[in-house]
Amino acid sequence: MENTERNPQVEAEVKRQLEAFTRGVEDLVSEKELEKKIRKSLETGKPLTVKLGIDPTGSDLHIGHAVPLRKLKQFQEMGHQVKFLIGTFTARIGDPTGKTETRKMLSAEDIAKNIETYLDQVKLILDMEKTDVVYNHEWLESLGLEDVLKLLSQFTVQQMIQRKDFSDRIKADKPVSLIEFMYPILQGYDSVAIEADVELGATEQKFNLLRGRDLQKNAGQEQQICLMMPILVGLDGVEKMSKSLNNYIGITEAPNDMFGKVMSISDELMWNYYEVATDVPMDEIKALKEGVENGSVHPMDCKKRLGSEIVTIYHNAEEGAKAREWFENVFSKRNMDVDLPEAKIEAEEIGVIDLLVKELGFFKGTSDARRLIQQGGFKVNDEPIKDVKAMVKIEDGMIVRAGKKKIVKIVK
Amino acid sequence: MENTERNPQVEAEVKRQLEAFTRGVEDLVSEKELEKKIRKSLETGKPLTVKLGIDPTGSDLHIGHAVPLRKLKQFQEMGHQVKFLIGTFTARIGDPTGKTETRKMLSAEDIAKNIETYLDQVKLILDMEKTDVVYNHEWLESLGLEDVLKLLSQFTVQQMIQRKDFSDRIKADKPVSLIEFMYPILQGYDSVAIEADVELGATEQKFNLLRGRDLQKNAGQEQQICLMMPILVGLDGVEKMSKSLNNYIGITEAPNDMFGKVMSISDELMWNYYEVATDVPMDEIKALKEGVENGSVHPMDCKKRLGSEIVTIYHNAEEGAKAREWFENVFSKRNMDVDLPEAKIEAEEIGVIDLLVKELGFFKGTSDARRLIQQGGFKVNDEPIKDVKAMVKIEDGMIVRAGKKKIVKIVK
Repeated sequence: MENTERNPQVEAEVKRQLEAFTRGVEDLVSEKELEKKIRKSLETGKPLTVKLGIDPTGSDLHIGHAVPLRKLKQFQEMGHQVKFLIGTFTARIGDPTGKTETRKMLSAEDIAKNIETYLDQVKLILDMEKTDVVYNHEWLESLGLEDVLKLLSQFTVQQMIQRKDFSDRIKADKPVSLIEFMYPILQGYDSVAIEADVELGATEQKFNLLRGRDLQKNAGQEQQICLMMPILVGLDGVEKMSKSLNNYIGITEAPNDMFGKVMSISDELMWNYYEVATDVPMDEIKALKEGVENGSVHPMDCKKRLGSEIVTIYHNAEEGAKAREWFENVFSKRNMDVDLPEAKIEAEEIGVIDLLVKELGFFKGTSDARRLIQQGGFKVNDEPIKDVKAMVKIEDGMIVRAGKKKIVKIVK
Repeated sequence: MENTERNPQVEAEVKRQLEAFTRGVEDLVSEKELEKKIRKSLETGKPLTVKLGIDPTGSDLHIGHAVPLRKLKQFQEMGHQVKFLIGTFTARIGDPTGKTETRKMLSAEDIAKNIETYLDQVKLILDMEKTDVVYNHEWLESLGLEDVLKLLSQFTVQQMIQRKDFSDRIKADKPVSLIEFMYPILQGYDSVAIEADVELGATEQKFNLLRGRDLQKNAGQEQQICLMMPILVGLDGVEKMSKSLNNYIGITEAPNDMFGKVMSISDELMWNYYEVATDVPMDEIKALKEGVENGSVHPMDCKKRLGSEIVTIYHNAEEGAKAREWFENVFSKRNMDVDLPEAKIEAEEIGVIDLLVKELGFFKGTSDARRLIQQGGFKVNDEPIKDVKAMVKIEDGMIVRAGKKKIVKIVK
């Protein structure tokens, strides 16, 4: 009976951790197993091994990328062992036929450079002293054909083509290279190699994460928990956050830029960001939401708090407060005597549409820019210009404003 | 202009070889390329590398297995370099999940024993002094994950599931293990490793043989010719020849047994065996066939010649003649004073149907046996027994006959 009588202190901690880890999680296989693993870790004093894998394909991280990283940080803060896995081996493998949509081969130099850039940003989130950075070439490089065949024998073609992007492409008669079948298997094998207790990933990674469970089971290991985070929606509230869509907040952006971008999102999206992109306790978020709904809290104030929270995460609390102050000065108090974001433009003269779309990237398409201009929202040094065909002479220090939330100082 | 002017002696030899190599061939990719390769070989004095791969899964060879081996021998006799490839690596790989119909793993001892048995039989056909026996573990063992990924990247899922047995199983919801995709690729890689000019195989191997061409092309090699032999039909004229169906002629069988089995085939099948299983020149075969059609040649004489030809291949001409003489004594001259095939039966008494079907294997099903008995074709010591329910007391030396061509002496 001893085993079934549980220590209330341990149980309280199990509950606390479980709540923290499942916050903002979109899918989980399975909560019951996670609870068991946390309890066992607390009882034995052996931390859980928590894996997050990335490909060193290189790019600036935005707060969407940061969602699983921040989940990893939660595990780290609660004393678990974080393994930040870099797919050095898989990145080296390109697709020589060029017929498929698999990633392209990267040179060793590119990979090294990308890893450096990546880790420089990751350290803004994780405590690198406590983070075990591992590279999958360390165990994948030594696999031979016989090992590969044993891995392959554990899966069927039918299982593989259940993955939605594969079945979609097969239906659409678009080629699926056999090498693509290897990526989920190798990702799963990584979990075996590091004996992961938990693997984090985005929801779209579910198929791959589950392959780790398959391989661990066949290898006689305890199966990892698959903890899947949502894909963060971009500032536009529609597309997923990405650099190419210019709807992102980069984690190394300046405080005022971060804050300004947060202020541009819809009220609806704000609650999603609160849950997924901040550490504000769920109870508080709930209270804020109720306040907005019953009119006791102004949504603008709520959004300003979100802006400060996000700046605080990637900079610090002081910067969070200062960014709010700056924003209130620029937009709310209409005071120009503050540090404005700057944009360098080399042209002598430029059409207004080109200025807003191509140079400043304020709009994705020309139609939005045209509408704003016609409505008088486009101002140079506080003078509206309503002619969409007007040319603007570029002068050092001129202030360009587009609507209420986009402002920039031109430098030559 | 020099290059286009061809040497008539060379051209005559090209023609001779091309005719020999394409005899009895069911499919060929492509005849034009084969002609070019033969010509180049004659002009440069460099023999073609001709590959035939087998898996050391072990079994007694029958004259169906011998079809591609005898084709290989033709190349050998015309001075080309024969590579007899044994799939030592692939035989080692089983399917640990046991879920699929892939071959089972073999132990190193089994493999060694099977190879010995195999080569002991192969030397009845090939000149082993001139045969290069190669083992694919020699190059496959050293392949690493990166090499495997490069191989995989050269094929798509869609290409693979074009192979009929794969698509059939996928349609029927029967699992296809991913490891099965590797076999054709590795077979193709074997061709790259030995730089094969020609690969022989059965028609059902076409998909796999063509993968060698794909990989050679991508590796910058000249593509191999795929020369596909028909699957030999068994003595029953319906199923493919196989030991398990007991419709085969083993290449190590005694001359009289071989001859007797040949005599049991249908007149129609006889022409197929003449072409595919003997060296009788095509012109002669054509003349024989015309003779039978216009009544100038008796089909029984034609079949006896076929029997002698086949015995000659696996034994010698003298044995071929003696077997014919024996057969004529036993069956045509109704003389019992000859060596009869013997069958050992331990039972004291047995039902007539069981005797014909289970003990002697004269029939596959009971209905054929029943019909023969009822028609009076079943005789014990020349006495017909027409009661299908009769019990026969087994005595040492008794002669059992079923129809005209099946006769056996019982030994206890």
